[in-house]
Formats: sequence, structure tokens, C-alpha cells
Amino acid sequence: MPAGICFDFFMTEKRRKTITLGSLAELMAGSLIGDAATEISGVASITEAQPGEITFLSGAKNFSQHLENLKRSRAAAVIAPEEAPELQLPSIRLKNAYFGLVKALEFFHPENRPEYGIHPTAFVSENAAVGENVVVGPNAVVEAGAKIAEGAWIDAQAYIGTETSIGKNTRIFSGARILQGCQIGEGCIVHANAVIGSDGFGFTPHQGQQLKVPQIGNVIVEDNVEIGACVTIDRATMGSTRIGAGTKIDNMVHIAHNVIVGKNCTIVAQVGISGSTILEDNVTMAGQTGTVGHVTIGKGTIVAARGVVTNDVEPNSFVSGFPCKPHQEERRILAALRKLPETLKKVRELDKLVSKKEE
Amino acid sequence: MPAGICFDFFMTEKRRKTITLGSLAELMAGSLIGDAATEISGVASITEAQPGEITFLSGAKNFSQHLENLKRSRAAAVIAPEEAPELQLPSIRLKNAYFGLVKALEFFHPENRPEYGIHPTAFVSENAAVGENVVVGPNAVVEAGAKIAEGAWIDAQAYIGTETSIGKNTRIFSGARILQGCQIGEGCIVHANAVIGSDGFGFTPHQGQQLKVPQIGNVIVEDNVEIGACVTIDRATMGSTRIGAGTKIDNMVHIAHNVIVGKNCTIVAQVGISGSTILEDNVTMAGQTGTVGHVTIGKGTIVAARGVVTNDVEPNSFVSGFPCKPHQEERRILAALRKLPETLKKVRELDKLVSKKEE
Amino acid sequence: MPAGICFDFFMTEKRRKTITLGSLAELMAGSLIGDAATEISGVASITEAQPGEITFLSGAKNFSQHLENLKRSRAAAVIAPEEAPELQLPSIRLKNAYFGLVKALEFFHPENRPEYGIHPTAFVSENAAVGENVVVGPNAVVEAGAKIAEGAWIDAQAYIGTETSIGKNTRIFSGARILQGCQIGEGCIVHANAVIGSDGFGFTPHQGQQLKVPQIGNVIVEDNVEIGACVTIDRATMGSTRIGAGTKIDNMVHIAHNVIVGKNCTIVAQVGISGSTILEDNVTMAGQTGTVGHVTIGKGTIVAARGVVTNDVEPNSFVSGFPCKPHQEERRILAALRKLPETLKKVRELDKLVSKKEE
Repeated sequence: MPAGICFDFFMTEKRRKTITLGSLAELMAGSLIGDAATEISGVASITEAQPGEITFLSGAKNFSQHLENLKRSRAAAVIAPEEAPELQLPSIRLKNAYFGLVKALEFFHPENRPEYGIHPTAFVSENAAVGENVVVGPNAVVEAGAKIAEGAWIDAQAYIGTETSIGKNTRIFSGARILQGCQIGEGCIVHANAVIGSDGFGFTPHQGQQLKVPQIGNVIVEDNVEIGACVTIDRATMGSTRIGAGTKIDNMVHIAHNVIVGKNCTIVAQVGISGSTILEDNVTMAGQTGTVGHVTIGKGTIVAARGVVTNDVEPNSFVSGFPCKPHQEERRILAALRKLPETLKKVRELDKLVSKKEE
Repeated sequence: MPAGICFDFFMTEKRRKTITLGSLAELMAGSLIGDAATEISGVASITEAQPGEITFLSGAKNFSQHLENLKRSRAAAVIAPEEAPELQLPSIRLKNAYFGLVKALEFFHPENRPEYGIHPTAFVSENAAVGENVVVGPNAVVEAGAKIAEGAWIDAQAYIGTETSIGKNTRIFSGARILQGCQIGEGCIVHANAVIGSDGFGFTPHQGQQLKVPQIGNVIVEDNVEIGACVTIDRATMGSTRIGAGTKIDNMVHIAHNVIVGKNCTIVAQVGISGSTILEDNVTMAGQTGTVGHVTIGKGTIVAARGVVTNDVEPNSFVSGFPCKPHQEERRILAALRKLPETLKKVRELDKLVSKKEE
Repeated sequence: MPAGICFDFFMTEKRRKTITLGSLAELMAGSLIGDAATEISGVASITEAQPGEITFLSGAKNFSQHLENLKRSRAAAVIAPEEAPELQLPSIRLKNAYFGLVKALEFFHPENRPEYGIHPTAFVSENAAVGENVVVGPNAVVEAGAKIAEGAWIDAQAYIGTETSIGKNTRIFSGARILQGCQIGEGCIVHANAVIGSDGFGFTPHQGQQLKVPQIGNVIVEDNVEIGACVTIDRATMGSTRIGAGTKIDNMVHIAHNVIVGKNCTIVAQVGISGSTILEDNVTMAGQTGTVGHVTIGKGTIVAARGVVTNDVEPNSFVSGFPCKPHQEERRILAALRKLPETLKKVRELDKLVSKKEE
């Protein structure tokens, strides 16, 4: 069944969806503790759940507080980690409770896809190729030579440039700009007001001025990538800036020209990656981190919040600070820093004592 | 008199507005020193004021320079703090001279509201509810189920999603995106290209990949909030991300899912607030600060520029640095740092002296 | 020949452009080593060049790696720095090889200007003044009183506010917002989703709330300025925020109200410049730097990555750190920091030794 029909069905049904606790446990491949016949009508947080809804207990921060809140919750059941203690409510237990939450959210809140197909106020060039079951929202623009694969959803006022391609079932949110010649894979999400394919920042000094180096490359985004709101990814000077399959990018991240990001990387908000840098697969850049240009960050590496990578980093490292160093070293330095003022005082005292003896 | 009519009246009048110095003093509830009958035709800075205009002397930085410039100003009068010295120009004195400036600016530069109401090129769904005196600019989009309260102004190319509500007299600037299901209060301003309601950054590991956690909550912005250009505020996973009444947010701030910002907070440019963080009322986050997730910053706290909050902060604190600590402590550390290289040298010297004696 | 005709000619021709190596050498005023009659059909990077194409050897990072790759390149010739060693391929030698690259890129990839002039879906107010050879893309908006000079290109869905002026041959990319009353010079580029003329962040405390100070100034951008994607430049409270001629601004830079940026400055990505700050000519702000308000950074100064300027900086300085200090001093501090934990240990040892003797 093509995605479009599936979505339409869900949209119509969504307001009155219910499922038994037993079926829900099956859907998320969890073990049920409680009555399988209980009807579940929605999913909500511990404090906001209404009677008949299922809620969610994570193994994360503030766990004991969540446990306490759960005692007062009006929820009918709870999705919980296998290792959670005995609970008053019926529960579905999973190794990864978040996976159960995803399944419940997907069931009760399927994508609410509009029925209009290509909206009459959208401008779609007659020289663009648009697949089956594509949605193009109000005042969106699809330029000549663009290719929109089946099931893609181009939201209101989004922009798809000339000779740009958008993969199957990819969603481009309102106001996102996918500029000339860029390629977005299948199953991607580009959030509102993101810009893919802006010019790289390249100039050369000439007669006392900065002469622009034309940026004639593009950006290639592989499959299943998510790109946050107001992210900017610059096109390559020549060749391609590339984002590997499965990579997830948070809001307001800047990725410069000719950067190569590997597969399944995680790039948190407000990160800046300088030109020609390589992130190998499974790299995590925490919030507000940065890199200088032309460095390689080895696969599986984590750069902790605010870190700045100034040199190549070995695979599977955990680095932090500016310049980045092994996280344990940075922690020792930060701890030592808090003792610095008293240490200076001590050194002055020692200096006096020792100098006196010298006399 | 409804806001819309008031604005139209001002627009027509604005080019030839004058007021006597006496009436202006009354308008700002200040004390006049000088001739009440002087005609004032505009407001401008000390160096740019033309004859007939009133200017403004702040008690802020570079005060003596401003005083000096004032002697050469062509202005007809000056709005000044009560405690300012005697001035050559007629003056209106106020405890808070900025309040006087606001009143003068509002008088001479009232909002320049277009007369077209709903522009013919805008797309407003027939299933949207639009109040009296609403402006919807060219190529703006208002989706089905949206509610635009009276006096609101949706600028050109802005986007109001399905079932989204915009409060009375709120202005949404060009290119701002208020996505599905979000609620904006009364008297708010959302600046150009801001995004309210982008998906939270939530994933769970599953079979070697990052599985998206659907983000089905919304964003609630209370009354009199101002949100800067290119700000992104993510919707909650479940429930609401919330911005309290009277809070002011500068450009390019990122607020993650399920964050709760209290009332009358001030968040300066390029701040990043991680998921589920709570800012209580009257918190100030200075420029380029950040927080980790799931922390609470007590009411009245100030986080100085570039600080990163990594743990809960007590109310009325003044913190800085990474990790944030009491500002006085951070200052002592920064001062000590500048002596660090010479201190290391001194320690090496002492070590030699002491070791020699040990022998 | 007006720019518009020139562009149209290039667009038609671009797919089959070739040039002899001799003519290309002349075009870039370089010295040719090799056969002047060789036909060149394109320009590409060392690893991506196809037979018949010219490639480029920079004097930058990883030079020996590039030299190695060049041996295996399929390119027909190479643009190279004068001082590069002897090469197997025919080469065009220049003092600044990047200048040669610019000329080649401009020749093979001229601007691909659409032929439609003012697109039928654009809204251009009848009270706007639009020059010759102007392009206005699909769903763009040009408000009343705006002036668009000849040869300017307003891309799809861009916004030009009331009484805003755009200079000759300036390009405003998709989704950029040039708000009411701002002025953009000639030969400028404003990238996608940038915002010029958002309100300055100005409030004054009044009755326990933050009262908005109306922002009635504008932004003036002089000639040949480039402004990156998602940049925000706030309008002045009164007067003008100003960006000097030839200045280049990377993505996601925030420039606050009443800032004055000099000529030929370089502002790298994610920089934040606080209100009323002055950057004199030829200042470089590296990535993720910042300034407090009301400071002056002297001409020719470089602020290294992540630096925060908290006081006036002398001309031709090289500063870094937070707070910014001479770069050499900051480097010494950073080096000393890595020895801090062991130094603390040493101080404790010395203290014990000295105390023992005291007894």
C-alpha cells in the first residue's frame, strides 16, 4: 500500500483510535503485566495522562521523581523499562522503553497529511518531474528541472531549486530552501527555514579586496537524514558537501562547504563545522561544539558540549574543551581550575617562606 | 477605539506630526525645564537630530562623551535622567529617561499598518477563523483550523499552521513559521524567519540506527512575548514547550523540546537551552549562554555571557563560566589564569630550591 | 553590454563551453607551462576532474597529499602557485593560484539567470520602482515604495519591504527578508533566509515588566557585501546599523542594533556582535566569536575563534580567549593549563616539605 493512501486512512481515523493493551504490547514487542483487554485511547506524559491513556516511564534523569509522579497519575497503563520496580499500574515492559513510546506515538498520532496534493497556489514548473502521491503546499515553489519522488511532501512556502532532487517520502517543512542542484535522499526530514546549498564562504585576496570564489558544487543528503530548523549546509566549492545516511542534525547547525559527514552521526544544536572537515560514521557533536577546517574526526567519537576540535581525532575518542583533549584530562583541568586562586596564594606563601630561608 | 483604527489614523498623520514640549512632557510624565510651547517635530540621536527634534541622553556607557556631543547637537530639546547635570538645551527629566524615549518614539513613529486587510495573494483557508481588523500580507499562508484573533498582523510570506492560534494584536513578521497546533498569546511579536513548533530532537537507538521519537506536543507562547529573528522553539515530545508572559527573546536563540521558560525572562542572542530545562521567572540568559537538559534555573538568576549551566541554580544567583559557578568565583579564576604561566615558572623555581636543600 | 544580456548569453552557452589552455592562461594573467592549443572543457577538483578538465592545486593545508593525488588525476592541466614544484601536467602558474581558480570557475560556470524577468506569481507593488533587467522570482514580494535597481535579482519567495532599496546587480536569495526602510548597495549577495532589519533588542524596565523601545532606525549595507544564510542584522534604535563596503559575512552571524562594521571585514559563521559595537576596516572575526556592546575593535584586528571581545582593541591586534587578550598570552595560558593538575600536586608536595621544615 503506497504511503499516501496509508496516511489518508490514518488522518480520517485518528480522532477515535483505540487499541487493547494486549495489541499495543504486541505492536511494541513488549511483555505485558496486566489485563490484555484494557482499552487504550491515547498516550501522554505521566502528569498529563487522562483516564484511558497509556503513559511512559523512562530510565533517565529524575527517575525517582517520575516513579513518585506515577503513583498519582490518572493513566490506565504505563510503558516501562524491564528493570523498573513493580508498579501499581498495568505495564508493558521493554528493554528499551523509548522504543515502546515510539510505537505508541506512531499509532495514536500518525502523520496528518493534507489531501490537496499539489495546492493550487503552489508554483510547480512545468519542467519539474513530480511523482505519485506528492504533496506541495500553498505558495511552495518547485523550479524547472527539479525531481520530486513519490510520496514526498513539500510544505507551504518551501523552495525546491532548479535541478534539485527530493527522494521518496521525504518531507520538506515550510520555508526550507533546497537550492539549485542539491540532492536529498529518501525518508529525510528537513525542518522549517533550513537552507541546503547556500554558497560556501570562499574568497581570495585580490587588489586589497576579497574576491568571491564561485561555489559551483552542491550538497548531497543521503537517506533517512533529519535536518533541524534554521540549519545551513553550504554547497561545495567544487564537488559535494555530503551528509551520510541516518545522520540527525538539530536546529541552527552550520555545516561549511566540502564537509563530509558520515553515517548515523548526531549533531546537536548550534554546532559549527568548518570547511572540508570530515566526520566519520557515528560521530556525536554535542551542543555548541565546533571544528576548525580540514580535520578528520574518527568514527564513534564524541565531542562533549562546547568543545572545539582543532586537530584530527582518533576513532572512538571522547574529547572536550578548547582545544579538544581527552575528556578525563579536561575534567581534571576544570577541577584544578576551581582550586587555582587558592593555589596561587599558597605559591606566594611558599615563595616567601623559601626566600626568607635563602637569605 | 479598536487598535486597527488607531493605527490607521496614525499612519495617515505620521509625516506631519508635531507636539509641544509641554504636551510631550505630560505624555511621558516628566518634569519640564524650558519653554512648554516649543514645537517638537521628531526624535533622533544626539548627533543626528535636526532642528526642531528632541534627542535623548542616557545614563549608560560613555555618558561624558554623550554630554560633550550634546553641546554640539542641533536638537531643540533633550530627554534626560533626573540626575543629569544642568544642560544648555530645554530638557524633560525622568527617573527612567528610557521611558521618555519610548513615549517619544511611539508618538512620532506609530506602527505603519497596511490598509489592505487580507491581501489578495495570501492563502487563508476557508476553515480558518479570522477576527476583525486582521492584516494578512502578500503570499502569507493561514491553514485550516487556524484562529487569528482581532488586530493581529500576519506579515508577507509568514506561515500559520493547522489548528494554530494567534492572539489579539500579535504581529508575526515575514517568513516566520508558526507550525501546527501551536498557540501564540496576545500582544506578542515574532520576528522574521523565526520557527515556532519545529520537532524536538528526540531519537532512540534501534538496530544500529537512530529511531525518531514522534514529537506530538506543541509550543505555547503566553502574552506580550517578543521572539527574535531566526529563533527556533521546538514543540514538546508530549505536552507543551512553554514561554511565559512578558519574556523577551533575542535573535537566533534555540529552545529545545519541553523547556519551560517563566515570565519576564530575558534571553539574549545565540543562547541554546536544552530539553526539559526550566527557567523560572525573571531569569536572564546573556548572549551565547547555554544549558544542559533537565536543570532548573531559579527565579531572578542571571547567567553571564557564554556561561553554561550544568546543574540546578538557586534563585537570584549570578553565575558564569563553564561549568557555571558564582560569578565572583569565576572572576577570581579568570584573574588567576592570567598569572598562571608565571606561577608555573615560580613553582619550578621553588621546586629546585627545595629539592636542593633536601639533598 | 548590460549584465542581463550577458547572463542570458552565458546560460544558453554554458553546457558546451570550451577554451584553449592559452586563452585561459591569458584570462587569468598566468604563465603557461605546456601546449597553448589544448582544449579545456571544465574545471574540477584534483580527484574529480574528468579528461579535458583543468584542476587546481592550492598552497594550503595538506599540500603534499594534493601533490600526490595530482599524479593520479585525470585532469588535462592544473592551475598552480608559482612556487609549486615541477608538475607532470601542463600548468598555469600564478602568484595567487586562487585567482586563477576564480577566473576558471567564472568562465565555465557563469550565473544561471532565469529568463522570466518578473515572475507572474511574484507580488510587486505598483508603487515599487523596478529597474531594467531585474529578475523577481516566484512568490517573491516587493512592497510599496521599494526600489530595485537594474540588474538586481530577487529570488523566489524573498521579501523586499516598504521603502527598501536594492542596488544594481545585487542578488537576494530565496527567503531572505529585507525589511522596511533598509538599503542594500550594489553588487551585494544576501543568502537564503537571512534577515536584514529585524528590530533591535531594546527594552526598559517599567512597572515590573520589560517595555519595548521602538526600533525606528534601519540597516545600510554598502556595496559588494556578501551576507550568509540565516544571518540576522538588526535595525538601529535610531539612525542606522551599517555594514561597510566589501565586507563578507558567513552564515548565522548575529549583528545587533547600531553596530558599525567597517569596510572589507570578514565575519565567520556563528559570530555575535552586541549593540553599538564598532568594527573598523579589515577586521576579522573568526568563527563563534562574540563581543560585548559599545566596544571598538581597531582596524586590521583579528579575533581568533571563540574569542569574546570585552574591551576596546587596538588596531592590528591578534587577540583570543574570553576575555580576549593578546593571542600569544592566551596560547601561553592554554599551554600552562594542561600542566595545571600536575602543578597543583607539586604545590601540595612543596607545601608539605616546607611545612615540615618549619616545624
